[in-house]
Amino acid sequence: MVPRQGGGHTDDAHDPAVRSDHLRGPGGSVRSAGRGARLHPSAAHHWLDVALEATAQEVLRVGARPTVISRQLAIVQTAVFDAWAAYDDTAVGTRYGAALRRPPEERTLENKEIAIAHAAYRAMLDQFPGERDYITRAFIAAGFDPDNASTDPATPEGIGNLAAAAVLEYRHGDGANQLGDEAGSDGTPYSQYIMYRPVNGPYEIVDPDRWQPIPASDGRGGVAVQQWLTPHWYRVAPFALESADQFRAPPPPLVASEQLLAETEQVARMNAELTVEQKALVEFMRDGPGSTGQSGHWLEMSQVVSRRDRNDLDTDVKLYFAVANVAMDAFIASWESKIYYDTSRPWTLIRHYFGEEVIEAWGGPGAGKVEMAASRWHPYSPAEFPTPPFAGYPSGHSTVSAAAAEILKRFTGSDDFGYTVDLMAGSMTEPGHEVPVTLEFPTFTFTAEAAGISRLYGGYHIQADNIEGLAMGRRVAEHGWPVVQSYFDGTAVIESPARLGE
Amino acid sequence: MVPRQGGGHTDDAHDPAVRSDHLRGPGGSVRSAGRGARLHPSAAHHWLDVALEATAQEVLRVGARPTVISRQLAIVQTAVFDAWAAYDDTAVGTRYGAALRRPPEERTLENKEIAIAHAAYRAMLDQFPGERDYITRAFIAAGFDPDNASTDPATPEGIGNLAAAAVLEYRHGDGANQLGDEAGSDGTPYSQYIMYRPVNGPYEIVDPDRWQPIPASDGRGGVAVQQWLTPHWYRVAPFALESADQFRAPPPPLVASEQLLAETEQVARMNAELTVEQKALVEFMRDGPGSTGQSGHWLEMSQVVSRRDRNDLDTDVKLYFAVANVAMDAFIASWESKIYYDTSRPWTLIRHYFGEEVIEAWGGPGAGKVEMAASRWHPYSPAEFPTPPFAGYPSGHSTVSAAAAEILKRFTGSDDFGYTVDLMAGSMTEPGHEVPVTLEFPTFTFTAEAAGISRLYGGYHIQADNIEGLAMGRRVAEHGWPVVQSYFDGTAVIESPARLGE
Repeated sequence: MVPRQGGGHTDDAHDPAVRSDHLRGPGGSVRSAGRGARLHPSAAHHWLDVALEATAQEVLRVGARPTVISRQLAIVQTAVFDAWAAYDDTAVGTRYGAALRRPPEERTLENKEIAIAHAAYRAMLDQFPGERDYITRAFIAAGFDPDNASTDPATPEGIGNLAAAAVLEYRHGDGANQLGDEAGSDGTPYSQYIMYRPVNGPYEIVDPDRWQPIPASDGRGGVAVQQWLTPHWYRVAPFALESADQFRAPPPPLVASEQLLAETEQVARMNAELTVEQKALVEFMRDGPGSTGQSGHWLEMSQVVSRRDRNDLDTDVKLYFAVANVAMDAFIASWESKIYYDTSRPWTLIRHYFGEEVIEAWGGPGAGKVEMAASRWHPYSPAEFPTPPFAGYPSGHSTVSAAAAEILKRFTGSDDFGYTVDLMAGSMTEPGHEVPVTLEFPTFTFTAEAAGISRLYGGYHIQADNIEGLAMGRRVAEHGWPVVQSYFDGTAVIESPARLGE
Repeated sequence: MVPRQGGGHTDDAHDPAVRSDHLRGPGGSVRSAGRGARLHPSAAHHWLDVALEATAQEVLRVGARPTVISRQLAIVQTAVFDAWAAYDDTAVGTRYGAALRRPPEERTLENKEIAIAHAAYRAMLDQFPGERDYITRAFIAAGFDPDNASTDPATPEGIGNLAAAAVLEYRHGDGANQLGDEAGSDGTPYSQYIMYRPVNGPYEIVDPDRWQPIPASDGRGGVAVQQWLTPHWYRVAPFALESADQFRAPPPPLVASEQLLAETEQVARMNAELTVEQKALVEFMRDGPGSTGQSGHWLEMSQVVSRRDRNDLDTDVKLYFAVANVAMDAFIASWESKIYYDTSRPWTLIRHYFGEEVIEAWGGPGAGKVEMAASRWHPYSPAEFPTPPFAGYPSGHSTVSAAAAEILKRFTGSDDFGYTVDLMAGSMTEPGHEVPVTLEFPTFTFTAEAAGISRLYGGYHIQADNIEGLAMGRRVAEHGWPVVQSYFDGTAVIESPARLGE
């Protein structure tokens, strides 16, 4: 992975038993042990590493786009799954169904590895066009030929390329506007096309119940004003959801309510009284400047599980497919409620309620709790990152974390996680004031709850955002899990499937 | 046509030379003169009558939806054109191109009449599902069999059905949300799916530069609050435009500007000082409760031209195809700027600028000019119709009228119109206070200008709405005319054409 600010907050640096660094990046090779030999971690784990690395590099280049990332990773994992399914006895792919299935004698580990490598490669080239060099180097380093564009289903290279092409063709028209070709868009990839305009201005709160674009340091002495990130995301075709609004959150508390005043005061109080453990949790769940988003973060935690359980290739392919796609659905559902309600964040609410009143707050790097005018209040974040650029209700962290945790629980048959992370609290927010902390995540459910509450500690969300996000995420996963299983057991019915020879 | 409030404002009731009542509605029959005999007006004129009647009936049932109407009429006229083109020597249809062309011996007037009847019938059934009975009666009255669903291209019935089916299949996915199946829609036909929410409330102007939903009498003693009509219309696939924003209007004047204050005062002054001729023009261009919208209105005026020039079938098919499709494009372009800028109307602006100040204004039915608080100001309209339910900039009347006028000018080779209408001023707005007036429309250009300025007289638009609408409409027509001609002369290139046997 690219270095994170503060460095080494994944478990890999601390637990040699689960190190997978030798598999990561262009230097590694799944062929080192001989293709077809059972690898730990698996080839699927390796290609997920490459995809996460491409994600992190892209984020450092263009900024964090958690919705976009969730779709990128779901597309890559789906291409991998669809290619792999051709060599499984029962699974069906999402685009061809069982039409790519190869005869029993071809269903070897080696063919699976070749097929998923090509599927991952083709999907990643499409999804991370700015990281083409890195991705191609990784593909070559693994012993593959980037010019092999075969679409012959009798070869595993052809299966991989076919599976990826079908997933990509389907997803290019899925409403995400990856190609910038949606009517009303400005032509740039993923640009909005729903004519969203904020009600509030960066320095003017017209309606405190609606989202405010927050002015932030641009890191070069100027000011950057936020743009609502992918407000059209409810239009993205879900993996399993029947519609984006299937689990729409109930109406949020409004500023005229006692509830919202109390929840705003709660965030202000939490943010003023942060312990080092809470600071560490905020940063761990915020996941730093090279973040792979909540989808990427939970896929990394799925890799932790994979290493813990010494997953084979088949299990890994299924696990990442399930987590990536349900996380994508969780983003779609969460974003639907976000744009539908278009609520404000603590940044706006604290200013609205308290204005020039003096409140207790985190005083900035190294300053601890101080008194300041509410109009100067800032989350526990660097100046460049005042608050994510989209509405608050419900919390995306909460929605996606609850969904992914639920899938991990169902997939592994247990809520047990047993994950421990050593990190330096403050490393991303208060450089020079770091404190070593160990965070324990005993269960998946606990981890999701911790992800959710961390957003209150950080000052990004109120409790209603968190509670309803967690509830929504669990519903998304409960709905998605049988659909996931139907691809595993071959009972899935594919609408408008891809067909060979078309 | 269904009776309009005040009655008889079309020329037909006044000029026996151009009466076409015998062709209208279920009672008429294009077969009365023997099919294939040259009819005046043509069979195309007849089916346009039926489509306009279906439109008016639907409007009386569900309310005025001018954008939707423009697409409905364009679809019907396109189906007619595509069917007719199969029997023309050079023209190509919009969906099949030249693939439906029949051999020379089949290119008879009778085959054209049969084909366009079936095309019109199938398209109307789809576009006006609530008027199925009326449409079917009209089809039977014309001597046709509503159960003839042939798709045999060797028969004119089959050509008509095939042409309509291809146009409908294409248009069902064109972004209008006719089927209510767009992600984010509430499932009802044509419902918006872009999460549009007004900034202002019906009784609260938060931002006077943005659109306000205006409360109106619901005609039953209650209050109806407006919903922005089809805010997603910029997503509809245009006929000839390269994109909906191709001719986007420049930024509109804002309330902080001298220009907008002056233009608001201008509307208030005009509205207070209305002459009977101006009142008549407002009502003629507003086109009453059974309005067919600006597209329908200009198609009716195209029929006036057809009767004036004694058009044959070929000329009528081409004329209505051109006017209907370019009018649809004008709506798409106009609506793109409307939602992009989302500006307010004189209703909101007069209240914003003048509040409780006393101004001179039209005082209501029979009252003439009176003094009243600006907060009570009302356009020259019935209480049920305070102002159209969508943003003001630019004026749809101006955009569509300029576009249609330009097409009529180019199609006929002259700006000459020579249209005279006798009507009762006040009949739609001040019953019991009608005054007979004759309106003269010497040229197409004059008529478009009159349509535009009528919206200031009425109190629906400021001058900037009008000026930029007229300019946009002319650009839309200039761009569309060569495309229209390419279908006539067979040089059009069809993207993803329909194919026989699929």
